[in-house]
Amino acid sequence: MTDYPVLESIESPSRLKELSDSELAQLCDEIRDKIISTVSKNGGHLASNLGVVELTVALLMTFDPPEDSIVYDVGHQAYVYKLLTGRYGDFESLRRDGGISGFPKRQESLYDAFNTGHASTSISAALGILRAKRRSNAPGSAVALIGDGSLTGGMAFEALDDAGRSKLPLIVILNDNSMSIERNVGAISSHLSNIRLSRGYQRIKRNAVRGLKKTKLGKSMYSGIERMKNRIKYFLQPNNILFEALGFTYIGPIDGHDIDAIVSVIRRAKALDKPVLIHAITKKGFGYLHAEEKPDEFHGIAAFDISTGECTASAANNSKVFGHKLCELAAEDERICAITAAMTAGTGLTEFSTRFADRFYDVGIAEQHAVTLAAGMAVGGMKPVVAIYSTFLQRAYDQILHDVCLQGLPVVFAVDRAGLVGEDGETHQGVYDIAYMRTIPDLTLYSPATVRELEEMLEYALRRSEPSAIRYNRGLLASLQDSGGAIERGKWAVIREPREITLIASGRMLARALQVAGEFDVGVINARFLKPID
Amino acid sequence: MTDYPVLESIESPSRLKELSDSELAQLCDEIRDKIISTVSKNGGHLASNLGVVELTVALLMTFDPPEDSIVYDVGHQAYVYKLLTGRYGDFESLRRDGGISGFPKRQESLYDAFNTGHASTSISAALGILRAKRRSNAPGSAVALIGDGSLTGGMAFEALDDAGRSKLPLIVILNDNSMSIERNVGAISSHLSNIRLSRGYQRIKRNAVRGLKKTKLGKSMYSGIERMKNRIKYFLQPNNILFEALGFTYIGPIDGHDIDAIVSVIRRAKALDKPVLIHAITKKGFGYLHAEEKPDEFHGIAAFDISTGECTASAANNSKVFGHKLCELAAEDERICAITAAMTAGTGLTEFSTRFADRFYDVGIAEQHAVTLAAGMAVGGMKPVVAIYSTFLQRAYDQILHDVCLQGLPVVFAVDRAGLVGEDGETHQGVYDIAYMRTIPDLTLYSPATVRELEEMLEYALRRSEPSAIRYNRGLLASLQDSGGAIERGKWAVIREPREITLIASGRMLARALQVAGEFDVGVINARFLKPID
Repeated sequence: MTDYPVLESIESPSRLKELSDSELAQLCDEIRDKIISTVSKNGGHLASNLGVVELTVALLMTFDPPEDSIVYDVGHQAYVYKLLTGRYGDFESLRRDGGISGFPKRQESLYDAFNTGHASTSISAALGILRAKRRSNAPGSAVALIGDGSLTGGMAFEALDDAGRSKLPLIVILNDNSMSIERNVGAISSHLSNIRLSRGYQRIKRNAVRGLKKTKLGKSMYSGIERMKNRIKYFLQPNNILFEALGFTYIGPIDGHDIDAIVSVIRRAKALDKPVLIHAITKKGFGYLHAEEKPDEFHGIAAFDISTGECTASAANNSKVFGHKLCELAAEDERICAITAAMTAGTGLTEFSTRFADRFYDVGIAEQHAVTLAAGMAVGGMKPVVAIYSTFLQRAYDQILHDVCLQGLPVVFAVDRAGLVGEDGETHQGVYDIAYMRTIPDLTLYSPATVRELEEMLEYALRRSEPSAIRYNRGLLASLQDSGGAIERGKWAVIREPREITLIASGRMLARALQVAGEFDVGVINARFLKPID
Repeated sequence: MTDYPVLESIESPSRLKELSDSELAQLCDEIRDKIISTVSKNGGHLASNLGVVELTVALLMTFDPPEDSIVYDVGHQAYVYKLLTGRYGDFESLRRDGGISGFPKRQESLYDAFNTGHASTSISAALGILRAKRRSNAPGSAVALIGDGSLTGGMAFEALDDAGRSKLPLIVILNDNSMSIERNVGAISSHLSNIRLSRGYQRIKRNAVRGLKKTKLGKSMYSGIERMKNRIKYFLQPNNILFEALGFTYIGPIDGHDIDAIVSVIRRAKALDKPVLIHAITKKGFGYLHAEEKPDEFHGIAAFDISTGECTASAANNSKVFGHKLCELAAEDERICAITAAMTAGTGLTEFSTRFADRFYDVGIAEQHAVTLAAGMAVGGMKPVVAIYSTFLQRAYDQILHDVCLQGLPVVFAVDRAGLVGEDGETHQGVYDIAYMRTIPDLTLYSPATVRELEEMLEYALRRSEPSAIRYNRGLLASLQDSGGAIERGKWAVIREPREITLIASGRMLARALQVAGEFDVGVINARFLKPID
């Protein structure tokens, strides 16, 4: 007897409609079990997937992909969808070489409507798909599932603006777990909080918590009467002003863990035949206590022990080295401030955010604003350090060029996760920053080869009055004793005198070069700067 | 006796406060006169500057730059500001070599708080400046002047979101002329229209029109009683829901041509000591009939005749060639559609937008959304062509890479204004596209050398199922008979057999190379593709 009898029976999503309420409840339990067990071995995005189990089941009961297109924003929450659209059998290969991807991939399945990875793209893509269907008289609808964090990204707003005007029946489902990768920020977030504080929501929450206590993995269906009451509630809520102003009919908030309620609201939304935003409240990590308690740790996680929730990740990494050094420098210079875009812990800024709370700015998923905000602060005499992952900084290319570098402003970019990052795949590799930053005039690009160089370069860059970027990999750089003496802008360092054969290495490759050089008669040079080239 | 007695007397903006109402009215007339006369000779941005004369005078009566920082969004509307902050004497050199810039430049004057050029950056920059002032206990406030068009750009929304939450007394003045570079689009725009249709606004408009009839260049002050009435009206208006939702106190709409009213509202906004958005209604081109009637033609204009409003611009250009060819192709293939970002006429799409209205999408100043929308449409089987100026396309670097090219989607980018564009200066040069597009895998980059090549390449690119970009300069390419035969992806064309000396030229430089080669024994190659390189 298999552990997942219901899940295994879902050969195609159309089967979902045949399940009874109790089978649906069991299905959700099985899905959670399967995801927890797989991610505990392979690593991956756990909390966000546990939060959308019922939402995904409800989506597949009301839409018929591939004819209908379901676009997942960011896409790290598509595991449930994959399990239910023919990839249960391959699920153990998740994020492994040759296995299934942790993100939607059109090349992997016809059910995946659009490849995602970066935030805030889903509404644009779904609107485009829907327009194309309408133009070509093709059947099917389009729906975007977007988190409250992604909604702070400007392009989501651009898309809502266009979609609201289009009057097309685009359905946007706001998956509101009041937490993007980390805590949410910004006025949008307070706005959603106000809705959450409303009486209707409080009731939904009480029900959800009560339900949580009743079942195996913390999942329940309400009684028929509760359900009816709640359903009426949704339509008594005052319409949400922000989305209404943008041309959307707003329905919510609804309980994002109540399949029956979601199905009924989606059906109503489809009948409206105009742009609709459904506001669903979910709990990140729902059904797995460790993830519920520490949703940011369990956002993206390496392999872990299911019963304790303990993860065997290495303690030290470049992000922490950077964050700690920045605190040391900030203690001595009040002009130093830090800006990030929903990546406080990821970029090692947790200590800074508490020790120097009044000069720490997490702007949410809003890389463009983060960079131009830094430009403004530099004009005002501050020394801003902007810490963002290489792949996400791509979104601020124009701001780095137009707002920081053309004005020659002293902003330091801490480009974390530069180079290959591994299992998240091609949308997350930090492999373009050298290429796109080398196109920008007056930007100095540092590439530390050791932990000490990372610290020294940060200090050095902050002393200079010019735009600079320090790129470093995920993981930990080497701690070589000698990487070539004091830093000097634009100068490479000779580690072993140049010979007939000389290895030139940059960043983490220096340690590898020294290893390769070994006892051979080979020179080694540390290419500390990628722009200018020595 | 000078033509500009009042304007000449403004040695520093503090002088403005000493002027009587009638002197202020005369000042505004003189400013309009001076701008019209200078732009008629040097070319430049006319309509937008005529629209902000009173707004700028009022700003300088209530703020004290450089201590207070006034950030102009885009910056093409800063001529009035320049005239009143010590640059009247140099104004005839506007946009000329060695002369004053058509945009704010910190290196030009202490009064210019932040360099702008691209849209939607002002709120981020002003917030950054204000945060820096607060952190360093420096005196002074910060204000952003942003047009309704720029407000559709996502990063403006990201910034409003952060500023609303900050509770800092940032003042944002929305200069609403219901027209960005061209007609405005999107739900935000309808939202503003609804406000404009309200009774309060209708009254303001009647007053403005009445005033217009009374004076020399169409400028007036209301009578004292009218003024009082209007002032009361502002505060009776229902607060604007969109901005209130974002944490701003909304004041408006007010008449942006009534200095006294603006001054009084700004004073009130300052007293509130929190984020405030002032909604001012202005008329683009106000005071110059030809510009009022054709505000888009007079947005950015070459030299023209003041009395007739006629401009001696050359009729044919690459944009028109592109637009006409696209219509020809679209007539034969229903899947072809066109997307632009507030640049319909500029990119030559006016004919397309009327002939094929149901497959034409102007998304407003929202380049990011434009590109991902195209990706969605391509997934849905359409053949989208995205026409955007090279410099503005920078903002969608991540979307070109992440949403179009990583998925290998058949989107064609028509990169207009590639290369040097001249007088607008460094923020507008299209000199980065080759560098940043060459970093993107699987993107084919075409560089037509003749008008016919531009047409052929567009047809060729639309036949292929891959991402491609065709870059062409402002102005008109050569009409050489032979540019090297049929287009083949990645292949350069031999025009004159390679010799010891061979010139390799791309795009508009081919004509120059042929000229240089002349009768010499020199080879000439047409580098039709910049990626891949042959």
